[in-house]
Amino acid sequence: MNAPTSPLNLIPEVHQREVPAVLISALKERFGERCSTAQAVREQHGRDESAYTTVPPPAAVVFAESTADVADAVKQASAHNVPIIPFGVGSSLEGHLLAVQGGISVDVSRMNKVLAVNPEDLTVTVQAGVTRKQLNEEIKSTGLFFPIDPGADASIGGMSATRASGTNAVRYGTMRENVLGLEVVTASGEVIRTGTRAKKSSAGYDLTRLMVGSEGTLGVITEITLKLYPLPEAISAAICSFPSIEAAVRTTIQIIQMGIPIARVELLDHHTVRMVNAYAKLGLREEALLLMEFHGSPASVKEQAETVQEISHEHGGQDFEWASTPEERTRLWTARHNAYFAAIQSKPGCRAISTDTCVPISRLADCLLDSVDEAEASGIPYFLVGHVGDGNFHFGYLLDPAKPQEYEAAERLNHALVARALRLGGTCTGEHGVGLHKMDFLVTEAGDGAVEMMRNIKRALDPKNIMNPGKIFVL
Amino acid sequence: MNAPTSPLNLIPEVHQREVPAVLISALKERFGERCSTAQAVREQHGRDESAYTTVPPPAAVVFAESTADVADAVKQASAHNVPIIPFGVGSSLEGHLLAVQGGISVDVSRMNKVLAVNPEDLTVTVQAGVTRKQLNEEIKSTGLFFPIDPGADASIGGMSATRASGTNAVRYGTMRENVLGLEVVTASGEVIRTGTRAKKSSAGYDLTRLMVGSEGTLGVITEITLKLYPLPEAISAAICSFPSIEAAVRTTIQIIQMGIPIARVELLDHHTVRMVNAYAKLGLREEALLLMEFHGSPASVKEQAETVQEISHEHGGQDFEWASTPEERTRLWTARHNAYFAAIQSKPGCRAISTDTCVPISRLADCLLDSVDEAEASGIPYFLVGHVGDGNFHFGYLLDPAKPQEYEAAERLNHALVARALRLGGTCTGEHGVGLHKMDFLVTEAGDGAVEMMRNIKRALDPKNIMNPGKIFVL
Repeated sequence: MNAPTSPLNLIPEVHQREVPAVLISALKERFGERCSTAQAVREQHGRDESAYTTVPPPAAVVFAESTADVADAVKQASAHNVPIIPFGVGSSLEGHLLAVQGGISVDVSRMNKVLAVNPEDLTVTVQAGVTRKQLNEEIKSTGLFFPIDPGADASIGGMSATRASGTNAVRYGTMRENVLGLEVVTASGEVIRTGTRAKKSSAGYDLTRLMVGSEGTLGVITEITLKLYPLPEAISAAICSFPSIEAAVRTTIQIIQMGIPIARVELLDHHTVRMVNAYAKLGLREEALLLMEFHGSPASVKEQAETVQEISHEHGGQDFEWASTPEERTRLWTARHNAYFAAIQSKPGCRAISTDTCVPISRLADCLLDSVDEAEASGIPYFLVGHVGDGNFHFGYLLDPAKPQEYEAAERLNHALVARALRLGGTCTGEHGVGLHKMDFLVTEAGDGAVEMMRNIKRALDPKNIMNPGKIFVL
Repeated sequence: MNAPTSPLNLIPEVHQREVPAVLISALKERFGERCSTAQAVREQHGRDESAYTTVPPPAAVVFAESTADVADAVKQASAHNVPIIPFGVGSSLEGHLLAVQGGISVDVSRMNKVLAVNPEDLTVTVQAGVTRKQLNEEIKSTGLFFPIDPGADASIGGMSATRASGTNAVRYGTMRENVLGLEVVTASGEVIRTGTRAKKSSAGYDLTRLMVGSEGTLGVITEITLKLYPLPEAISAAICSFPSIEAAVRTTIQIIQMGIPIARVELLDHHTVRMVNAYAKLGLREEALLLMEFHGSPASVKEQAETVQEISHEHGGQDFEWASTPEERTRLWTARHNAYFAAIQSKPGCRAISTDTCVPISRLADCLLDSVDEAEASGIPYFLVGHVGDGNFHFGYLLDPAKPQEYEAAERLNHALVARALRLGGTCTGEHGVGLHKMDFLVTEAGDGAVEMMRNIKRALDPKNIMNPGKIFVL
């Protein structure tokens, strides 16, 4: 494990490549006002929700309205060896959107059409700029839903590119399991399709899964075909407070090991409950708690909830508080999804460094509890939330951007946590991606040979290294 | 779609590369008796369950007992540009094991250790030669099971390499969803690891999913970490006969569209029931039937079974016949798994050409029924089985290998079926892989651009083209 360094040092070799004026002219000619070089637009597209703030913005932003737009922008950039950085809603936590080697941001947020709903096949095809909430709103009348829900109202393109998940993944899987096929603009500006609408296939290399999680480094995802699920006949959500984080975690481990098909099981520590209470006026008991949801037939939901309540009691959990109406449930889950923003507001002017380790469920307590002790000892304010049913949790260390010593302390905590997770058979990132922040961790986790294989794939599919270069690894 | 051709013509450019005597000597020195050049051993390793019989066998067979053995064999072969063909139990249906460019077969069947069972995490790590039945036998005492079950008792390595599935995939997914991580010997003989034991990860390119389904063309899989599942508290299996294939298919479509978590739903047509009856003395009603299985709590199993029985009745299905004891269930599913062998025995001396299309569930009736009519009109004996809950089904055309006109007629049927499946948004192969037989179909399905991307990956990871060359595509 490398020694902790400040975030700027974690961006290796920030070489701004030249973006020739002739390219900007050509893009303006092709896209008119949809190619912007305005400072404010460029700056908005040159940052994200990560702690990085000091990289110069992209030279221009192209607002694509079609796959052909994306392909033309890539072809023009390719002709000048200029980087292309795909942009959805800007909710990356790992610096994916930063123009560390300069280049052009391609904003796909106007590619926001739901192209084909096939309710009888439980599939939908969308453009990359459709957000998860928009999608669920548009398919509401079908009785189906799309379960993957990162905290932000992210674009489906961005969620695919980072292999995102969220609170429902414990039951419904992640983007890895829920993307059936893609349309991708390659590094040469060619448009290819991967996968079909069939539920399974053994037809050649799994290009779909190669693109999912490639963070824009192998191509720009322009269309996505997703699995949908019938809205459960019955849904029940409950809050349960625990005397300690450990009690909540041990309860979770037992639920998973018993194979109970729980739909959501989310941990909030007492700090986070306090922040969420302040932000959303929730009045929750300020102790560690689990937010849980059960999906199924009425009988099955009742059966699951009874079993889980028994397990919780064995670990000292309070009685369940039920959120029985859809409105109460929405309020609860909105509060959970806003935990990040609630935390940011709790320390005005701060930025958060968010950890993202994921470990085998049996190692969850070992991994989490020691890290809680370390965070407490550091004196740095933090929040702690977890998709604990998957063994995945996030510390968010809240930093004053003006104080390098806070960055350094947070990075020390993060390094210790990742080292611990890897020792326990886990991963440095469960759902946020590598981006700029976890390149060294990736090498420690996967090994030089596997990372070199990734680089070889990158070199083969993007010989000019123009697709979001400098993310995942530096070539 | 290309014009039908005879199977031998479907093996493009059978160029046997030279295997120098010095390589064979070096392998014999390294492996002693575990490197065999005996004609019978070579021939056994130069064929599989596909209809291809006329390719010369590999020059030698190395019986690997460790990852180091595999790595050394690959390094030695690489030094001479000689192909390596991984061999598990020989149950491929698509010619994966044939030495179409010559080379060395690396038999991993002696790498048959279950390396680590982690019941508390629902994971297991095995060597590539462990078979699916062996695995379930060895983990029996944990109360867990591994659900993926292709017809044959295949090796886990081979199942990973072909992205296999089987009867449980409708509920538990395929190898795509159930492999957590791999150990792989690359084309240069290096050993890499992909994935971790964590349930999810966003750590770089998904090399695990790239290797799963790569049919030995990117490396030799030597270890596999798999997901396991708790044995259901209750299991119930039932047979239901229908007045027509259409009625059985429409029942299936409705079960899936309602989101019923059925564990297995398998179609057998009346020909297949007859063959299975003759082979296994089952006495089943010789009509189209669905074999079904329900997993869950006793209450949930009862609820699922009642709903499905109602749907079946609406489509003219008979009352369910229950297989209530484990022995009865095993007998039933063994009969299903032996359908292929029952069919082969029904026409002594025959070979089968097995189709493997998979379509979105709403198009299943359209795809299947026209193909049944065509098969009936052809006069060629066939069997028809289907993992219909996934939209996947197999015709097996039973051919006299001495009669080229039977091959040609079967290939015509196969081409018509694949063309239909692709028009309906499906895939040419749901679970068997491309191998030698479906290369043209793959191009039609995925498009030149996507296949060229696969070739570029292959060239990057196997520059000498020694890893099972001539499968999936010809470089």
